[in-house]
Amino acid sequence: MELVAVPIDIGTRSPTVLLNEADAAELGVHALERVQLRHDGRTTIGIVELTDELVAEGTLGVTRRLGHIEGDIEVSVAPQPNSVYYIRKKLNDIELERHELSRIVNDIYEERLADVELGAYISATYTNGLSMEETLHLTECMAEVGETITWDDPIVADKHSIGGVAGNRVTPIIVPIVASAGVKIPKTSSRAVTSAAGTADTMEVLCDVEFSVEEIRDIVGQTGGCLVWGGAVNLSPVDDRIIRAETPLSIDPRGQLIASVLSKKKSAGSTHVVVDIPYGEGAKVESLAEARELAEDFDRVGTHLGMTVECAITNGASPVGSGVGPVLEAREVLATLEGNGPNALRVKAIRLADLLFESAGVDADATEILDSGQAREKFREILAAQNGDPDVKATDLSPGRHTHTVRADREGVVTHINNRLVNEIARRAGAPKDPGAGIELHHRIRDVVAVDEALFTIHAESSDKLSDAIDLTERVETVRVRHPDEALVDRL
Amino acid sequence: MELVAVPIDIGTRSPTVLLNEADAAELGVHALERVQLRHDGRTTIGIVELTDELVAEGTLGVTRRLGHIEGDIEVSVAPQPNSVYYIRKKLNDIELERHELSRIVNDIYEERLADVELGAYISATYTNGLSMEETLHLTECMAEVGETITWDDPIVADKHSIGGVAGNRVTPIIVPIVASAGVKIPKTSSRAVTSAAGTADTMEVLCDVEFSVEEIRDIVGQTGGCLVWGGAVNLSPVDDRIIRAETPLSIDPRGQLIASVLSKKKSAGSTHVVVDIPYGEGAKVESLAEARELAEDFDRVGTHLGMTVECAITNGASPVGSGVGPVLEAREVLATLEGNGPNALRVKAIRLADLLFESAGVDADATEILDSGQAREKFREILAAQNGDPDVKATDLSPGRHTHTVRADREGVVTHINNRLVNEIARRAGAPKDPGAGIELHHRIRDVVAVDEALFTIHAESSDKLSDAIDLTERVETVRVRHPDEALVDRL
Repeated sequence: MELVAVPIDIGTRSPTVLLNEADAAELGVHALERVQLRHDGRTTIGIVELTDELVAEGTLGVTRRLGHIEGDIEVSVAPQPNSVYYIRKKLNDIELERHELSRIVNDIYEERLADVELGAYISATYTNGLSMEETLHLTECMAEVGETITWDDPIVADKHSIGGVAGNRVTPIIVPIVASAGVKIPKTSSRAVTSAAGTADTMEVLCDVEFSVEEIRDIVGQTGGCLVWGGAVNLSPVDDRIIRAETPLSIDPRGQLIASVLSKKKSAGSTHVVVDIPYGEGAKVESLAEARELAEDFDRVGTHLGMTVECAITNGASPVGSGVGPVLEAREVLATLEGNGPNALRVKAIRLADLLFESAGVDADATEILDSGQAREKFREILAAQNGDPDVKATDLSPGRHTHTVRADREGVVTHINNRLVNEIARRAGAPKDPGAGIELHHRIRDVVAVDEALFTIHAESSDKLSDAIDLTERVETVRVRHPDEALVDRL
Repeated sequence: MELVAVPIDIGTRSPTVLLNEADAAELGVHALERVQLRHDGRTTIGIVELTDELVAEGTLGVTRRLGHIEGDIEVSVAPQPNSVYYIRKKLNDIELERHELSRIVNDIYEERLADVELGAYISATYTNGLSMEETLHLTECMAEVGETITWDDPIVADKHSIGGVAGNRVTPIIVPIVASAGVKIPKTSSRAVTSAAGTADTMEVLCDVEFSVEEIRDIVGQTGGCLVWGGAVNLSPVDDRIIRAETPLSIDPRGQLIASVLSKKKSAGSTHVVVDIPYGEGAKVESLAEARELAEDFDRVGTHLGMTVECAITNGASPVGSGVGPVLEAREVLATLEGNGPNALRVKAIRLADLLFESAGVDADATEILDSGQAREKFREILAAQNGDPDVKATDLSPGRHTHTVRADREGVVTHINNRLVNEIARRAGAPKDPGAGIELHHRIRDVVAVDEALFTIHAESSDKLSDAIDLTERVETVRVRHPDEALVDRL
């Protein structure tokens, strides 16, 4: 059917098209079904919504996500995507071949799969798992779609954390250390999905983070590194959709996780990658054995793709830094670069940077680079290149002025700090949208505290959100304090 | 956040609301996320789409599916539905308890689950299965939501086919036979989802099929039966959503199937139900053993719900009648009631009606009722009550005038007729939207045919759609003809 496309001011995430009911009946499509749009020799997919009045018969309302399409357009019912057959095969626990995984990845890329089908794909790979062979193929296929960046350098470093730990803001410390040693590290990071702050949210307190591939090249050309938001470049379009589908379900199938991380690194042109695998109670990986298996799989898939991947298995049972939330984390990053940060953050950043140096055969010492002020200077360069104020100091940053401090209801020892609750309370307080919102932890695990001693302070930019956060705090035990005798039992 | 609701002319299937970008940012919601709407003390769920211009800041665009909401409305971020936790539990292959299944059913009913989550639910019940206990609970929970109909009669009969077979249009023959014996049979049927015609599509050739619960009561009060579209009444809102999610994936988990069918019958007030389970190559159930297991499960769940459920295990390897498509099937229904229909259709209808009589302890003989013309007379009454022409005869109906006949390319025996292809070709020809479109089969399995003898004729209402159907026909083997020797091998 030939229709005339008209722009409609709706939508950002799905390629919705508005069809007049009469045209939809003629085509034989219903709401939420997919149509194929042919325009200037290109074929794209639209998801149908119906209207009586908003678009007239003979016209097609094109929403923002589809970009600028105007004029005559050929609209037909989209055929059922082949990948649905392969998803069913995986639901039946039959191993998929490379061309089948490739079809699934391409259908996700081209928006041919509906959300129900995407949910089934995630579920199938979660319940039935992905073999090493499937993981290798999936990673390759995911790396093949979307944009890629190539570099002339023999070593291009990268770092990734599988996440799940609050206040784990080591990336903005590692990047300037590594770049100071002359190793290129073009780091793209995510924004928070379920946490209180992503690296991109934290960096945004200090400078811009949205750049095109060309601009990233310039920044890295000038400074050797960057700290930008990956979502602004189209390096991993399929991964973005898969993560959006996994998030509400809080499932993260191992094979899919490896494919997501390493395909992104491959597209970004990385040669040497350090992967931080935090494990422990409440982390994504709960046991050391599981962490080791995951590390081995990362290593094998990396090797297959021609990358050197080193995994650091780290303590993920409690937050790393003391600050959680964009401003609070940015402040600790600066403090660490200035030589005054929390020791845990400093030690972890040094360890990961040294692991990168070692794996790439680079003769450099992260401690020396950090302590000599070289990393601080490099960070200034990066801030300047990303339109930030290079002279910003930790003391310049102030978290939200509405505060509430939670105190110990007994004397004893801090035995546990719940990552998930810390994140959730910080989010209720407004993080990451309100950058000043978050949590400041006053104690670490194994600290001895007196009755009424401050355990943590909630910061918010509005009193309403502070109350929301307090409401939750009062119903849960975020920081567990036990009598020394009990604490011993707790730890056994 | 307090907004003013304004109606927007979009949408039929999802409860979409249009938020101005500024309000969405303030609320902290993104496109496709869910918001909770409080209005007149009621709470409903809306799925967010964003706009800059279509709705102004401070207003909320309410699309059709949400009904008439106007004036002030309190909008907040919808909390993550609890059922997501239970879906993950099922993905981990842990049995669900009644209250957990109840939460899932209610969240589906209230549109709290996103499509990705619904896809995960279907996938989890498919790959990990539902225990008998879970199936019992699920059926009860599904029967509890939506409208219900109650009858004063001690016996209320019903009939259901699990589907998958072309030309299986026995329902419009069974209903008048059963009603003639004084047994109430208020039959609601579906429209075609993936087949060439549903019972509702076929009946619509002869009369109206969309009625309210009150109107259904009147029709059944007058005639003892009805043949209406179930989608017009809200008897099984959850089932409708689940079927919509299963359809693209072509998966139909056994426990979910039983719960879908029997919860619907329970809501409709049925006491005695006959379930047709066609089995064989290409049918939903491929083996006799599987069909028997399914029949046993139907029986157990029915008994638990206080219904008598009898299953008929029937031949589902090839089409039952000769006509496939609304008009062609309606013509055969009339012919069978007039005493001139295909024998297979007549025999199957009689068998299922007799099974209903037997299970309900009713002393009646389906053959006698059909042969004496009583069923024909009862069908006339039902047609009249549903605003149709009671005097319509089989010879009054004409299928689409654009035709193409497929002939045997060799002499031999018909060894197989592919249900799926018959349906697909009929759909390409325009069925069910073009009621005259469809397929007329000239031979049945085991018929001997000569070279060039007609195997089947495609009917269409437009020459374009006829060509589409011919295109597919030429690429596949719909009716398999084999040399008698080969045929023997084929059957071994």
